[in-house]
Amino acid sequence: MNKNDRFLIVGLGLLGGSYARGLTRAGFGEVYAIDTNPEAIRFARDKGYIADGATENFEELVRMADRVIFALYPTALEGWVARYGALLRPGCICTDVSGVKAGLVETVQATLPEGVEFIASHPMAGKEVSGVENAHLVDFSPANFLITPTERNTPEGVEFARQLGRALGFAHIRVLSCAEHDRMIGYVSQLTHAIAVSLMCAPGAERFAEYTGDSFRDLTRIARINETMWAELFLWNRENLIDEIDGFTARLQALKSYLQQGDRAALEEMFRQSTRARAAFDKKEKEE
Amino acid sequence: MNKNDRFLIVGLGLLGGSYARGLTRAGFGEVYAIDTNPEAIRFARDKGYIADGATENFEELVRMADRVIFALYPTALEGWVARYGALLRPGCICTDVSGVKAGLVETVQATLPEGVEFIASHPMAGKEVSGVENAHLVDFSPANFLITPTERNTPEGVEFARQLGRALGFAHIRVLSCAEHDRMIGYVSQLTHAIAVSLMCAPGAERFAEYTGDSFRDLTRIARINETMWAELFLWNRENLIDEIDGFTARLQALKSYLQQGDRAALEEMFRQSTRARAAFDKKEKEE
Repeated sequence: MNKNDRFLIVGLGLLGGSYARGLTRAGFGEVYAIDTNPEAIRFARDKGYIADGATENFEELVRMADRVIFALYPTALEGWVARYGALLRPGCICTDVSGVKAGLVETVQATLPEGVEFIASHPMAGKEVSGVENAHLVDFSPANFLITPTERNTPEGVEFARQLGRALGFAHIRVLSCAEHDRMIGYVSQLTHAIAVSLMCAPGAERFAEYTGDSFRDLTRIARINETMWAELFLWNRENLIDEIDGFTARLQALKSYLQQGDRAALEEMFRQSTRARAAFDKKEKEE
Repeated sequence: MNKNDRFLIVGLGLLGGSYARGLTRAGFGEVYAIDTNPEAIRFARDKGYIADGATENFEELVRMADRVIFALYPTALEGWVARYGALLRPGCICTDVSGVKAGLVETVQATLPEGVEFIASHPMAGKEVSGVENAHLVDFSPANFLITPTERNTPEGVEFARQLGRALGFAHIRVLSCAEHDRMIGYVSQLTHAIAVSLMCAPGAERFAEYTGDSFRDLTRIARINETMWAELFLWNRENLIDEIDGFTARLQALKSYLQQGDRAALEEMFRQSTRARAAFDKKEKEE
């Protein structure tokens, strides 16, 4: 990656916008974007996030790109690559921001022309808002940047993704397989969102604001959710997510059975286990 | 309540200690405490949280008290009142800090001698630590103070509880019935803790520190839990908590069935519902 590389951001929403902003601030002078919404392009140009952009007749921008960031939902990404992928020139390296990988990455790699590399990555950062106008609120500095290569990727491709993660200022950069990624995301991200949504959908939940403590507030913060994006991510990864829902439900049902049996010792043992696990988690996080 | 009232704190742990500290700071000069642990008494006396205290031969402290705060677990509270309640003098008003009310409040009121009033209350504040040495970490200023009178209580008793909540600096003081209290607590506090524990008890959960985002961290913060206290609170309120677990599980299973059926519209509708509920909750909280 060097400062003269021509970047093209495909999809100028919250993440696409924060990538454009981050790359420009990191000293990359050739950052372009395409989006269907002229307001998004205008906003990013006015703010200096991009050198220029387009909503149509963007073939030339695509042909000239050295580095492409697909900041689209998975289904839209597949559609875009099928329609415009052939325009990309050999030597171009592409990545994405998708929260799911298995299935998607293989399809995109198989669709792109010979000589165009797609190295998948996932910035674990976001906000409970959307749109390029909120891009400045996304903070990469405490976040993980995950890279998920397949056997089709080259060391140069992986190195590009690493440099991108570093240029954007992520705290940690990790490499793992698409399958590992999706299993982990099913647990730490999707299951937690499924729980928050299920908790907040209780009849009359909003009434409890006057009584609640911190724990309820923390658990349900993420129940404000972009329904289009999350429905897509959930469905894309549904086998992993269903497994995690089943595992979680079994543990919650075990807890319920201890309550029904009045089994104080079993309850206390479960609480000790969760306390140990959370303490180990805190320790591990601190060591990073 | 006036500045010459003689207070007795029964049980000098995290909450008993923070009440002693708060009352002394609010200008009440006659704050005494009893506890089985001499270290706790010594610490509180050294820090100036209490005027004096005792671990045994405390009958005189009990007889002379105008106001008593029971900062004990529910079972210990019942036991203490059965053993020493008769020592309290007529005119004395007592309260507690218990996180459960139904069953407990009636028993305590029935056990205390004629002329001694027990007005139950629940400070919705705490910390993931215990002991009087951490009392300074408890912050009442953003928290709710709940008062749960029964038909045995007098307007004077309720007014004492209100003044206590104000003296300790709670943000909001609310009055509700014991049954309403326990149902609400089953949902906003106990269910959320049951969820956090069940989430954190996943095999290998602590390994995920290196991949996690904010949502997982927020949801599992409260999985570090005082097992003795929470086992007691859960069992005391188990009917309400089991109802809440059942309701929550049904909503999570509905979400799972939408995944299995690939029903994107139903998923999106559930996400819109949770988003609306959380937005209403945020708005309500802001208005307070």
